[in-house]
Amino acid sequence: MAPVSSALEDLVAALPEGSVVTDPDIVASYRQDRAADPDAGTALAVVRPRRTEEVQTVLRWATAHGIAVVPRGAGTGLSGGATALDGAIMLSTERMRDITVDPATRTAVAQPGLLNAEVKAAVAEYGLWYPPDPSSFEICSIGGNIATNAGGLCCVKYGVTTDYVLGLQVVLADGTAVRLGGPRLKDVAGLSLTKLFVGSEGTLGVITEVTLRLLPPQHTPCTVVATFDSVQAAADAVVTITGRIRPSMLEFMDSAAINAVEDKLKMGLDRTAAAMMVAASDDRGPAGAEDAEFMAAVFTEAGATEVFSTSDPAEGEAFVVARRYAIPAVEAKGSLLLEDVGVPLPALAALVAGIEKIAAHHDLLISVIAHAGDGNTHPLIVFDPADADMARRADVAFGEIMDLAVSLGGTITGEHGVGRLKKPWLAGYLGPEAMELNRRIKTALDPAGILNPGAAI
Amino acid sequence: MAPVSSALEDLVAALPEGSVVTDPDIVASYRQDRAADPDAGTALAVVRPRRTEEVQTVLRWATAHGIAVVPRGAGTGLSGGATALDGAIMLSTERMRDITVDPATRTAVAQPGLLNAEVKAAVAEYGLWYPPDPSSFEICSIGGNIATNAGGLCCVKYGVTTDYVLGLQVVLADGTAVRLGGPRLKDVAGLSLTKLFVGSEGTLGVITEVTLRLLPPQHTPCTVVATFDSVQAAADAVVTITGRIRPSMLEFMDSAAINAVEDKLKMGLDRTAAAMMVAASDDRGPAGAEDAEFMAAVFTEAGATEVFSTSDPAEGEAFVVARRYAIPAVEAKGSLLLEDVGVPLPALAALVAGIEKIAAHHDLLISVIAHAGDGNTHPLIVFDPADADMARRADVAFGEIMDLAVSLGGTITGEHGVGRLKKPWLAGYLGPEAMELNRRIKTALDPAGILNPGAAI
Repeated sequence: MAPVSSALEDLVAALPEGSVVTDPDIVASYRQDRAADPDAGTALAVVRPRRTEEVQTVLRWATAHGIAVVPRGAGTGLSGGATALDGAIMLSTERMRDITVDPATRTAVAQPGLLNAEVKAAVAEYGLWYPPDPSSFEICSIGGNIATNAGGLCCVKYGVTTDYVLGLQVVLADGTAVRLGGPRLKDVAGLSLTKLFVGSEGTLGVITEVTLRLLPPQHTPCTVVATFDSVQAAADAVVTITGRIRPSMLEFMDSAAINAVEDKLKMGLDRTAAAMMVAASDDRGPAGAEDAEFMAAVFTEAGATEVFSTSDPAEGEAFVVARRYAIPAVEAKGSLLLEDVGVPLPALAALVAGIEKIAAHHDLLISVIAHAGDGNTHPLIVFDPADADMARRADVAFGEIMDLAVSLGGTITGEHGVGRLKKPWLAGYLGPEAMELNRRIKTALDPAGILNPGAAI
Repeated sequence: MAPVSSALEDLVAALPEGSVVTDPDIVASYRQDRAADPDAGTALAVVRPRRTEEVQTVLRWATAHGIAVVPRGAGTGLSGGATALDGAIMLSTERMRDITVDPATRTAVAQPGLLNAEVKAAVAEYGLWYPPDPSSFEICSIGGNIATNAGGLCCVKYGVTTDYVLGLQVVLADGTAVRLGGPRLKDVAGLSLTKLFVGSEGTLGVITEVTLRLLPPQHTPCTVVATFDSVQAAADAVVTITGRIRPSMLEFMDSAAINAVEDKLKMGLDRTAAAMMVAASDDRGPAGAEDAEFMAAVFTEAGATEVFSTSDPAEGEAFVVARRYAIPAVEAKGSLLLEDVGVPLPALAALVAGIEKIAAHHDLLISVIAHAGDGNTHPLIVFDPADADMARRADVAFGEIMDLAVSLGGTITGEHGVGRLKKPWLAGYLGPEAMELNRRIKTALDPAGILNPGAAI
C-alpha cells in the first residue's frame, strides 16, 4: 500500500480537475453535519464528483488503498451520519445536480445532490408533485433523504421517501455500479434491493441516481389548529382521527415549542396551552372541509381549549410555518440535541410525559414537537456546549429518551437515521438476531468495511 | 448425515402430532401451485406447523440434514414459487391462522396462512381496511402475498403489499427467529430488512408473523366503463388520466377477454370492441363523481366508442366482477400460461401490439388484461397441455413476451414473482451486477442454499 499522500495524488490524477479538495479550511467545513458530532475527525480530502463513473473511480481507489469513504449530501443530517473520520474521504454529492422529468411515466430521474425543494420545483413545472417533505426540505438533498429514508409532515397520508423511490443507481464499495429498479410502477423481479438501499445511511453503497415516483398535484388543504391544556387530550384526539380519516398533516407542538415560536413570530399563539395541534386535510372539494370539521369536533370533544379552522390556504400555511419554525425557534435558546424517537400512536402521551420527567430530573429544557399522526416525535434537548455539566446531562437525557421510547414499544429513530449519535442504542433496540442480520448484509456488500464505517450498523 | 427416513423420524418426533404428512396422495397434492410447473418433483413430506417455534424446529432440522425447504402459502402462486422439489420438505403455513387487530395503532398482527380475504374481513370488523387486493384475494394467503409483494386492482392508488408491511417475524435458514419492525408507522433504525424480506419468495427466510398497516375504510367508488376500437386509444387515455388524477382502479381488458367474459356472464359487453377500460375513483363526495366525469371525458376524447358512468356501487361492482372474472373466463378455453409483464405507462399499447404479433406468429390465443394504471399486464396464453406442439409454442411465447417487455423498458414480473417459471429470464433482465448483488444477499442469509432452491434467485 502506497503512503497516503502518494495515493491521494493518484486520485487527483484520476478525476477531473477540481474534484479533490485538500485545503484544510474547506476540508474542516465538511467535518460535521447538523448533528455537530463532537467526536468528528479530520478527513484526508473532500471529493466532489459530478458523474457515476467518477464515484466509481473514488471507490475503486478507496478499496485499493483501504481508505474509508463517508458519503455526504447537503450536510443537514441530524444523527451524525456524515461525520468526518480521520484519514477518510468525504464524498460530497453536491455537484451531482441533474434532473429529468418524464410526465408520461410520472417519474423523475435525479442525481443525489439536488435539494428536496429543487426536486419539488422541477417536477411542479410539469404539473406533478414529489410528496416527501422533511422540515428541512429547502436545504436537504434528495440523496440524503434516500440515505435516511426521510419523512416529513405529509407522511401521515402520503408515506415516506422509500414509497417514492422506484429505482436507484448505486456504486458499491468495490466500485461496481448497479442499476436497481427503474420507471416501472410495479416490479418484483429479484430481491427488493432498491428498498434495501433506501435508509442504508451510506453503509452499503453510494447513491448516484434515483428514479422517483411522482403524483398529480396536492389539493389545497383545509387546516385546523387546536390548543389543549393537556398533552393526553391532544394525543387522544390523534388516535380518534387517524382511525377514521386520512389527514394530510397531524402535527403536535408542546408548550415550550409554542412559546419559543411565539417569541419569534408573535402570531398570537396561546402561551398557556400545554399542547397545540396543527392538522390538515387535502381531500378535494367539500370532503376536505368535512374532514376539517370532523377534526375540529374531535379536538373539541377531547377537551380543546380553542379550535380554529380555515380553508384559506395562506391562513393555513401560517400555522404550518409556525410548526416548521419550531426547531429554529427552540434553537434560539441554546444548542440542540435533536431526538427522533417514535412510538405506537396510543403511547404518544406517555412518551411526552416521560420526557417531561427526564427534563425535570436533569434540569433541562426539552421541547417536544411531533409528526403526531405517525407517532414520530422530535424532543429538542436544549443545552449550552460551553457548560460541560449541562452538555453531559443533555447526552444522558438523549439516551434516556431512547430507552423510554423503546420501553413504550417505540423506535430510537423514526426518520433521521442512526448515524453515529444513536449507534450505541441500535443493538439494544434491534436485539441480537436482527443486529446480526444487519451485519451479515453489511459484510456481504462491503466486506472491507470502507463505506461510512462507524455509522448506523 | 443420517439416512433420510431416520432423519424424518427425528422431525416427526420433534413436532406436535399430525404436523408431518407423508401420505403420498397428500404429498402429491402439494406438488404444484397454480403455475402447474411441469417440472415439479416429489417432496419428502409436507410439514404443517402452527407456531414460529415449530418453523424453527423444521429449519434447524433441515439445516442439520441438508434438506431443502419449500415454503408454501395457499398454493395460488402463478410463477412456480412453491413447486415441489424431489426430497424437499413442503413447509405449508396453512395452519398458521391467528390474527389480532389493534384499532388504536391501526395495525393487525397476522400469521401467514390467513387468506387475504380473511384479513380484510377481520380488520373490517374494527372499521378498518387492508387495501392490497390481488384478483385471487379470496383464495391467496397473506404470507404468499408478502413473499411475492403481491399487487392488485387498487394498487394504482393505494400501493402494493410492501407498502402495508410494518413488521415481520421471519425464521432464517438456520432456525433463528428474527423480529423486524413492528407497529411503528415510521422506523429507520438499522437496514430496511422488513422490505428486503417482502418479495423474497421464500428464498431468504420463512415469514411466520406479519404486522400490517391498516387504513380507514375506502369510500364508495364511482365507476366508469369505456370501450374502444383501438388499444392505442385506451392506452393514451391511461397516461392522460394518471397524470392528472389518482383513480382507485384503472383496468384494461382486450377483445379476447371481453368476449370470454361475455360468453360466461352475458352482461351485454360490446363483443366488437378492441379494448375495454374499467376505471373508478373513490375520492369522497362530489370529488369521486368529478373524477368519473373527468375520466369519461378523457375516454371520449381518446376515441371511446361507448362510455358508461355510474355512482351506484352494485352497478360499478358488476364491471369489477367482470374484470376479475376475465382469468377464469379465458381459462375456460384451455390451460393458461399466465404472464405478468409490466412496462412504463407510455409503452402499454406497444406491448399489447407486440403480444398480438407473438400470438399470431405462434398461432395461439393470448388475451391481455392489465392493471393499466400501473403498466402491469397479464397476457393469458391459452394452450392444450395434451398438444405437445402447442404447449411448446406457448412456452416460446411466454419467453418472447418477457423479452418484448424488457425491450420496451419493462419488467419480467410486476406482481406474481419470478418463481421457477421466470427464473431463466431473471439474470438477463437484472444484468450481471444486480444479479450478483442478489446472489450475495442470498448467500449471506442462506449459505447452504436450503431455502426454496431453484426459485427466483
